[in-house]
Amino acid sequence: MKAHNFSAGPCILPPEVLRQASEAVINFDGLNLSLLEISHRSKNFVAVVEKTQALIKDLLDVPAGYSVLFVQGGASLEFVMVALNLMKKDGGKAAYTDTGAWAGKAIEEAKRQGEVVVVGSSKDKNYNFIPKGYEVPVGMDYFHCTSNNTIYGTQMKEFPKVDTLMVCDMSSDIMSRKVNVADFDLIYAGAQKNMGPAGATIVIVKDEILGKTGRDIPAYLNYKTHISKESMFNTPPVFSIYVMMLTMQWLKDNGGVEWIEEVNRQKAELIYNEIDRNPLFKGTAEVEDRSTMNACFLLNDESHTETFNEMWKAAGVSGINGHRSVGGYRASMYNALPLESVQVLVDVMKELEKKVG
Amino acid sequence: MKAHNFSAGPCILPPEVLRQASEAVINFDGLNLSLLEISHRSKNFVAVVEKTQALIKDLLDVPAGYSVLFVQGGASLEFVMVALNLMKKDGGKAAYTDTGAWAGKAIEEAKRQGEVVVVGSSKDKNYNFIPKGYEVPVGMDYFHCTSNNTIYGTQMKEFPKVDTLMVCDMSSDIMSRKVNVADFDLIYAGAQKNMGPAGATIVIVKDEILGKTGRDIPAYLNYKTHISKESMFNTPPVFSIYVMMLTMQWLKDNGGVEWIEEVNRQKAELIYNEIDRNPLFKGTAEVEDRSTMNACFLLNDESHTETFNEMWKAAGVSGINGHRSVGGYRASMYNALPLESVQVLVDVMKELEKKVG
Repeated sequence: MKAHNFSAGPCILPPEVLRQASEAVINFDGLNLSLLEISHRSKNFVAVVEKTQALIKDLLDVPAGYSVLFVQGGASLEFVMVALNLMKKDGGKAAYTDTGAWAGKAIEEAKRQGEVVVVGSSKDKNYNFIPKGYEVPVGMDYFHCTSNNTIYGTQMKEFPKVDTLMVCDMSSDIMSRKVNVADFDLIYAGAQKNMGPAGATIVIVKDEILGKTGRDIPAYLNYKTHISKESMFNTPPVFSIYVMMLTMQWLKDNGGVEWIEEVNRQKAELIYNEIDRNPLFKGTAEVEDRSTMNACFLLNDESHTETFNEMWKAAGVSGINGHRSVGGYRASMYNALPLESVQVLVDVMKELEKKVG
Repeated sequence: MKAHNFSAGPCILPPEVLRQASEAVINFDGLNLSLLEISHRSKNFVAVVEKTQALIKDLLDVPAGYSVLFVQGGASLEFVMVALNLMKKDGGKAAYTDTGAWAGKAIEEAKRQGEVVVVGSSKDKNYNFIPKGYEVPVGMDYFHCTSNNTIYGTQMKEFPKVDTLMVCDMSSDIMSRKVNVADFDLIYAGAQKNMGPAGATIVIVKDEILGKTGRDIPAYLNYKTHISKESMFNTPPVFSIYVMMLTMQWLKDNGGVEWIEEVNRQKAELIYNEIDRNPLFKGTAEVEDRSTMNACFLLNDESHTETFNEMWKAAGVSGINGHRSVGGYRASMYNALPLESVQVLVDVMKELEKKVG
């Protein structure tokens, strides 16, 4: 039995992507060589990089003037790169929202490079909502927000209009819904949720915003390096980029971001309806800010924990333990998770009600 | 026919490693889940990280007091991290040897952080030898060298004794021969030659040398972060680490570094003997500094180029075109390349002699 994989990331990928990836590890492109043992500068792999970029541009409708880059180090290294590339060397200032543990780490890194103004925070409510209605002061080098907070199950439904550069960490909901890339100056995301396996980070950046800080930036940490070298400044994470290409092709073949947005809406509706209907459970995030990617919920009576855990495990459900800072359960429903898996979990929740309710 | 893969990196891996890696992409550890879709904090993957560390410590006989870390960004990011972690914030100074393009990039990055003294250089001879007999001035924060220069086919056969910290980029010959790790304070290597696929970098660092520069180092770039988080500060390159584990297990099962050092010696002897014997060819590196990993050679008469190229391609040889800065040919003979592949190439060189000599 294939598990129903609700893992928070690295997370479920489409079965046909895994099959193709597995084959390429033995024989890539009919070369009689593994994808893992060819030069990253071979024409076959250069074609992979170019196709992955083209698919991302196509799926997100990336306007002219933006570059799509593949780097390493995850969002954690992006926290550093964003500040180095966008915050002025002298008197640098940026506005951040504090919507969770990862947003907090982004803030910490920016503080090493300049002044940070936290313009909206949900920290005092254990990040169970998305701050709104804040003002971004004038004179900021950029504004930074996190679109989806996996640990707490909150998601920005709208993005503020700001009078400075708009930067967003979309690690956990990129490619899950339509966004207007033109409204952003820099988007970054670790690949290991909706885009592919761990090991690659994507950056979508408006070229003209770079090179204006007065800083001498280390080559690897400078977005301009990766633009000028077309993401081949050094050996890229070959396998991760290849699997990203397969995953983006899967998304496109099935109807693109518009299609997956509707699937994700249905999955979220199914589980949140059950959380709200079933007297045994309660959601942890404010209703209007609930994430379509990560549904966080608790048992009202913790004495049912053992019974519930046995039941969902017996049903083949995997990966729904909540993060330690919220507790309870977290059902992560990334793009490749089918509606059927959510139905299996919802059925278990209903069965529990019959059994102990 | 399986190709004889002389690729300079990413490069050949053992067939049994590729088979196991391919299987794990479908079903890892009997979990009915792909290795790509499980949490990096799951006990199954934590076991992978721990086992890979233990294998590296075992194979290289790493002494107590050293940490083995997995990071991302390749040697290019290590160039930055070494300088940030070891060069004093005020009045920092380090000594570097300049033995090739990558050594040169390491120097460039260190110059952003402090003063660099180049103590030995082979630049004026297109890096065709390893400088020796240089003195490292007093007052240096560390000494940095590159053990093997893939582009030029040169390799340090001995390491100097220095009165400062000893740092070495072993990206292209780590695990190919015995080194006394206790003679080094920091060793780093991109995995994609002898250790596994692209996407992971390993660092072996003596813990006590860290935290002494007076710098406020970004979290990701601080080795202490990765030590304290056991290489799980953020999502690590899961697949690359797993394949590294398989490759290190393959090395251990076959007899470890002592065994592969002898195999590598035989491979190098076979090809260099032919380069020296066959009047059609000449080696580009000084004989005493010839690399066991990368043999660089030229045709004395370039009019034979097309014939030779056709012949080695017909024999199933792949990846021996030289780097553009040296020209000619480069046979990279990393650990997983069997002696038989070198014999095939040598046979082609002999056939060319019969045909046109």
